[in-house]
Parts: sequence; C-alpha cells; structure tokens
Amino acid sequence: MAKETYVGVDLGGTNILAAVVDKKGRVLAEAKSKTEPERGAAGVTERIGETIAAAIKRAGMRKKNIGGVGIGVPGPVHPEAGLVVCCANLGPTWDRFPLRQTLAELTGLRVTVDNDVNVGALGEHTYGAGRGASDMLAIFVGTGIGGGIILDGKLRSGFRNSAGEVGHMVILTDGPVCGCGEKGHAEALASRTAMERDIRQALAAGRQTIIPRLMEETGHTLMSASVIGDAYDAGDELTREVVRRAQYYLGILIADCVNLLDPEVVVVGGGVLERMGEPYLEPVRRIAEQHYINKLDVSKIRLVPAALGDYSGVIGAAVLARQRLIS
Amino acid sequence: MAKETYVGVDLGGTNILAAVVDKKGRVLAEAKSKTEPERGAAGVTERIGETIAAAIKRAGMRKKNIGGVGIGVPGPVHPEAGLVVCCANLGPTWDRFPLRQTLAELTGLRVTVDNDVNVGALGEHTYGAGRGASDMLAIFVGTGIGGGIILDGKLRSGFRNSAGEVGHMVILTDGPVCGCGEKGHAEALASRTAMERDIRQALAAGRQTIIPRLMEETGHTLMSASVIGDAYDAGDELTREVVRRAQYYLGILIADCVNLLDPEVVVVGGGVLERMGEPYLEPVRRIAEQHYINKLDVSKIRLVPAALGDYSGVIGAAVLARQRLIS
Repeated sequence: MAKETYVGVDLGGTNILAAVVDKKGRVLAEAKSKTEPERGAAGVTERIGETIAAAIKRAGMRKKNIGGVGIGVPGPVHPEAGLVVCCANLGPTWDRFPLRQTLAELTGLRVTVDNDVNVGALGEHTYGAGRGASDMLAIFVGTGIGGGIILDGKLRSGFRNSAGEVGHMVILTDGPVCGCGEKGHAEALASRTAMERDIRQALAAGRQTIIPRLMEETGHTLMSASVIGDAYDAGDELTREVVRRAQYYLGILIADCVNLLDPEVVVVGGGVLERMGEPYLEPVRRIAEQHYINKLDVSKIRLVPAALGDYSGVIGAAVLARQRLIS
Repeated sequence: MAKETYVGVDLGGTNILAAVVDKKGRVLAEAKSKTEPERGAAGVTERIGETIAAAIKRAGMRKKNIGGVGIGVPGPVHPEAGLVVCCANLGPTWDRFPLRQTLAELTGLRVTVDNDVNVGALGEHTYGAGRGASDMLAIFVGTGIGGGIILDGKLRSGFRNSAGEVGHMVILTDGPVCGCGEKGHAEALASRTAMERDIRQALAAGRQTIIPRLMEETGHTLMSASVIGDAYDAGDELTREVVRRAQYYLGILIADCVNLLDPEVVVVGGGVLERMGEPYLEPVRRIAEQHYINKLDVSKIRLVPAALGDYSGVIGAAVLARQRLIS
C-alpha cells in the first residue's frame, strides 16, 4: 500500500515547524522548536530531526507509516542535488549544505528540499486559496517579498531554481535601495521593511505618529506587521499614507506578473496580509486591475488572500514530498 | 501518411507574408501582398487566402499536400475559438472577427490562429536562437515591445491568452505615458517609438543631431530603426545617449522577466535588433545580468539575438499549425 502520510517542515530563522499531513492536507499533529541558528547547519539539522520525530510521535504514528519528509528552506536550493545554496538568515554554515542527505541519514526517512516560498505556494495551490486553478502565482509580503509559480498544477522552479523572485523585480528604476543592494525592487517599495523605513524616515523628519507608543506598549523593537496594523486601524495618518504607498507598489508588481504570466489566480500571503486582511488587499486589487493590459477579462483573474496562514509552508512541503517521493 | 508541410502566415499592418514550411523549418516558397487594412477584415482575409494559394503554387504543391495553415495576428486572439479579439493597427472590423472559420472556408484548409509575437517566439524556439532550450522567453523590440513564453517546449498563452505582454510591464512607476495610456511601461521606455519621442523632444529643445538630415536623405517620415541605426553608427551624440537609455530599460525589463520566470534562454528580436545587432544587445546583456537576483549561475542564462529575422513569424505559425492541427 502506498504511504499516504508525509511530514512537512518549515525551517525559519526563528522556529522550526514540523507537521504530519494526511492525503487530504489535514495536519494530524505538529511540533515546534527554536531554530537557534548559532548551532550551525549540522546542529540545526539535528534539531529538525528531533522535531520531525516529535511530530510523528504526537500523531501516534511510526516512521514506517510516513512516506517521506519535505522541507522548505529560507533561501535558494538545488532540489535535484538536495543542497541548500545559501541561507542569508541562518549563516554561512548553510552554504552548499547537503540537507537532504544529512536529514535522511538522521531520520531514516526519504527527504526532498525546496525553497520556503515555493512550498508555501504549493500548499496554497493544493489545499488553500488557489485550489482548482491550473496556473497560480503566490506572493508573500513580510520582511521581504517572495513568490512561487504553479503552472499546470506543478511548482515551476525555473532553469536555475530561482523562478518566482518577485521581490527583486524592478518596478521603479533607480528607486530606493533594496536589501540585496540593487535599486527600485518591489521589496524595497512594498514589503513590511519598506513601510518601516518610510515611517522611521518620516519620524526623523518630525512627522507625528502613534507607532513609537504602540511599540513601547507591546515591547516590540521591530515595527512588526501587528504594530503597523494596529496603527492603521487606529487611523494613524502617517501609517495610512505609508500603507497606501506600499499597496500601490504591490498592485503594480502584481500587474507586472499578470501581464507576463497571465495566471488564473494570484494568492497574496505573508505577515502583512495575515494581520490586515481584505482591507489591505482591496486597494491592491484595484490598482493591479487598472494595470492589466488585457482589460477584457479582468474579472476572470482572482486576486485572493492566502488561506492557510502559517501552515502553508508545512502543508506545501508535505505535498511536495508526496509529489516527489511517491514510490 | 501524415502531412509534413504547413503554411505559416504573418499578418502585419503593412504586409501579408505567407510561407510554405517543411518539417525541418525550411521555407520552400513564399508570397507577399500588401495588407491594405482599409479593405476591412473580410477583404484582408480574402487577400490572405490569395497569398496562401500563391505560396503553395510557387512551392509546386497542391492544397492536398498541405497539413494546414497557422496565422499570427498583430493583436490578442482566442485560439480555441479561432477569433481575433481586436487589432489596433488594422481597425475595428477585426473586433471578434472569426478569422479561423473565414479563412478555412476560403481556402479549404484547416487553420489555427495566434498572436504574432507568440508565433515569432515559437519560430525562434523551434528553428532559431532558442533551439534546444526547454524554457525560453522572446522579446521583440520595434514600434512596441512584445513577448512570447515557451515552457517545456510549448507556447504558453496564459489563462486569458494574454501571457507575454512584456511591453506593458511597469518598470518605472509613474514614468512616461505608454501608447496604451498607462505610465512607466517598458514599451514607453525602450521601444523604437520611445527613442523617437526622446530624440524629437531633444530636437525641440534645441539639441543637435544628424537625424533630420538622414530622414530627409532617405525620405523617411518615421524615425525607423534604420535611421536610428545609421545615426548611431555615425557617432551622433544625441542618438547614442537615447539608445543607451533604451538599452538600460530593456536590460531592466529582461532582468524582471528572468527574476520571475528563470528561463534558460532569452531571445531578443525585432527591427531595432535586426538593424543594430550585437552592439545593441551587448550593453543590454550587461545591465540585465547586473539585475539578476540569482548571481551564482548568471553565465548559464543565454541572452541572444533572434536568428530568423523577418521569418520568425511565418516559420513559427507553420510550427503552431503542425502542433495544433496534427491528425
């Protein structure tokens, strides 16, 4: 009998989340650990193995019932070789780290590796907001902006495994500098980080906002999506202005992708969307639609919020494992 | 025995080109007519039929030896329905015109219809600069900028048949107005038309250039790619400045597409490339590569000039017919 239960793992800079996922995309059990990147690639991989074991145990299952493990990594990978290319957030010990082989040896399970945003897109396509669509683009807006492409129901990794890098598309030539060093990228204009930069600059120039008070009250040092959302909901004028600008650029980014790819569905996810929901997405949709070159069937394209929240990664990783590791 | 010879037609605003193409992509014979758009969709389609018949006759063949006709149209189409959606250059009689059915009835041949840029991309992929690549993007720079996407060796039309509209991707938010009315599109920054606008504006502001003299000498009223190329070759300072700017924006457009799609090959074609060749493409390549987010394998992506010149359309249309009409 084919094994129908897989483990999906979402490796983040802060947490490792592992989930046992059945063939209907239901999470049967999960386990979470701190990543503690200072342990290095080998140490973190050991912890990933322990987290997987804990999730399987909580599901009341044994390894022999598990078809394999899919893992999403915050950086570029070589899926065929099972290598991590690098992970800026996790440190240099991850450069060309053989994650698939190391984790397979540790767990005795078959393993497949991909980029975290790619597996998130696959999760949203298979069990989330993109269900039933043949072609889908997912865009996740948070600290950065990442994307994943599904065509004919399959994840498209691209020739060099770097398809879907929507955050580094230039939408304002010679615009603000991006984290990557180049200018005018969507990530430098529409991410949470871009909003934080704009708010801090306005503060420094003497603009009034309730943001510093909110951060103090909640003990945040970073301007999280939750802080920005609270200020927006409270009607803070500077925040509204900055969010509107970010929405404008996100709408333009989405239009660029639609004009090139013409997918059926665009799913928007990530921290900002999760916190702010439809009121965040509605103006983005309006701006995007204004910039679609094909105006005849604008209403046919669905621009929708992600449906799986923090679980898109683990569910998508389990789907990937099922697709790639099927016996 | 399966028929191995197809007719490809390239319908342009000025000329109709029909070619009889064998299974190796060789043009066995061709025929050309004036489009004369004022004849309207029905009249032009009659002339297309005559041009096809002339090409078949010149090849020394009969209709019964021809597998079918593929035709590339300068505007959006519904391939499944065989309809032209509209053709801005040809007039309103083309709106929702049933080209497939009309031409099939006129010629007694099976017909398939697609966008001219899409079939050009398919031609370059099958027999031109993109041969052997699994995934390819073609960008044609002329009066406008159009593109076509090949993935897994197949033309991707998109959910609404409008994939590949690279000319209308925003690369400079709120930049110059495009022919379509929106701002900051690649077409408004890197097309021949954009160069012409920049040169005319500089002229109006008193800048010196040999362009007006060249146009007078050659009897051009439009600033053709050939005029721009001649001025560039003669070292005209304004022309060099304007071409450099257009190259910069084209490089950024290509990088945007590569960061999203990650294809193996990008083919650049169209009037400007045909006239200026590698000296035009080399700076574009440098700028594009600077903006690829994946810097590890930059050299793996081939950014190359189109190889079929004016024949990419007819050859691609014949390939499309072979793919779609195979018995």
